[in-house]
Amino acid sequence: MDYREVEGAREYVARLDHGVGWRSQIEAFADEEKIDAAFFVGLGAVQDATLLFYDQDDQEYDDVEFDEPFEVVPAVGNVSWLEGERFAHTHMTLSREDGSVVAGHLDEATTFAGELYVREFDTELAREHDETTDLDLWPL
Amino acid sequence: MDYREVEGAREYVARLDHGVGWRSQIEAFADEEKIDAAFFVGLGAVQDATLLFYDQDDQEYDDVEFDEPFEVVPAVGNVSWLEGERFAHTHMTLSREDGSVVAGHLDEATTFAGELYVREFDTELAREHDETTDLDLWPL
Amino acid sequence: MDYREVEGAREYVARLDHGVGWRSQIEAFADEEKIDAAFFVGLGAVQDATLLFYDQDDQEYDDVEFDEPFEVVPAVGNVSWLEGERFAHTHMTLSREDGSVVAGHLDEATTFAGELYVREFDTELAREHDETTDLDLWPL
Repeated sequence: MDYREVEGAREYVARLDHGVGWRSQIEAFADEEKIDAAFFVGLGAVQDATLLFYDQDDQEYDDVEFDEPFEVVPAVGNVSWLEGERFAHTHMTLSREDGSVVAGHLDEATTFAGELYVREFDTELAREHDETTDLDLWPL
Repeated sequence: MDYREVEGAREYVARLDHGVGWRSQIEAFADEEKIDAAFFVGLGAVQDATLLFYDQDDQEYDDVEFDEPFEVVPAVGNVSWLEGERFAHTHMTLSREDGSVVAGHLDEATTFAGELYVREFDTELAREHDETTDLDLWPL
Repeated sequence: MDYREVEGAREYVARLDHGVGWRSQIEAFADEEKIDAAFFVGLGAVQDATLLFYDQDDQEYDDVEFDEPFEVVPAVGNVSWLEGERFAHTHMTLSREDGSVVAGHLDEATTFAGELYVREFDTELAREHDETTDLDLWPL
């Protein structure tokens, strides 16, 4: 396991905007506050969601779209640099009225309501292409 | 996205009491320690659970009751003030013996065993009615 | 609820090794860094997984094996001492290409890729047998 000891920096609690993309508004916030490395956890609800699943054999993302409301239980992710932009790598678990669940890597979801805790680190994390997985990972 | 930069305050690790409500004992702990703002993550098991799903059209919570044992994988939530009381807003993902999963906003669940990390913030968070969603959210 | 106020100590961001056990490499890292108490959150993907479910009546773990790739959405857990070894108590929620989900207490899973935030505490947590549940829990 490759790892980096980091120093905690700024911390935030946030209320996500209604009707706006969950991931895009985390990225806009990260740009505004110039956050170069962070982890976050969140909960709330979304109006729809497009989730991605990484096909480990084909090394491509497949997407699945859900046009229905969900509780977000939870969202967990991090902020780092990817190809010159701040990227909020987000995995989301979503539940329906009967308790049933879907989950995956978040492409995007329209926020109904959301609450987030963000912990910034005093370092910069940047993704680079990893040959083994064909994913963009941190060289730590 | 509305947000507030916060300072980290006290931190706790906790073992939840067997046979007692998961949410109510977090709220009792928050009262005892006078915690006015915190996020938490936890894992464990419960003996039953009542989950809520927010109907985004009708703007009402619908509940679904499960009278069976589950693993808690995980619970994520926060502590803030709601109508004069400390409220532990908790979303919980629950799994069965065959791996199948249900999840939602936690009304209450009887704890079998539970472990929690609580991070307090040096601020006060209080929920107020939000017109758009008819939920009680933080004005940040 | 039994709890202990703790001081935050070192913090880490990590990239898990491909092809290696998710839990075992967290434990190897904890040994290397001499971490005696921590919580972590993570996300990523695994190539397979063996999950456990604690039978609350029989007080035994039942296992269920999945020989297929999954997204990890998320993994939440902690590090503490169990019978003389550092143990990474880990609960994992896993999703498939169609969004469907399984979850449970992680026995082990082969990592495809993984990202972790680890927060160490300046204390030592050690598990002891609990008569009520027949689990190994923290006396706090």
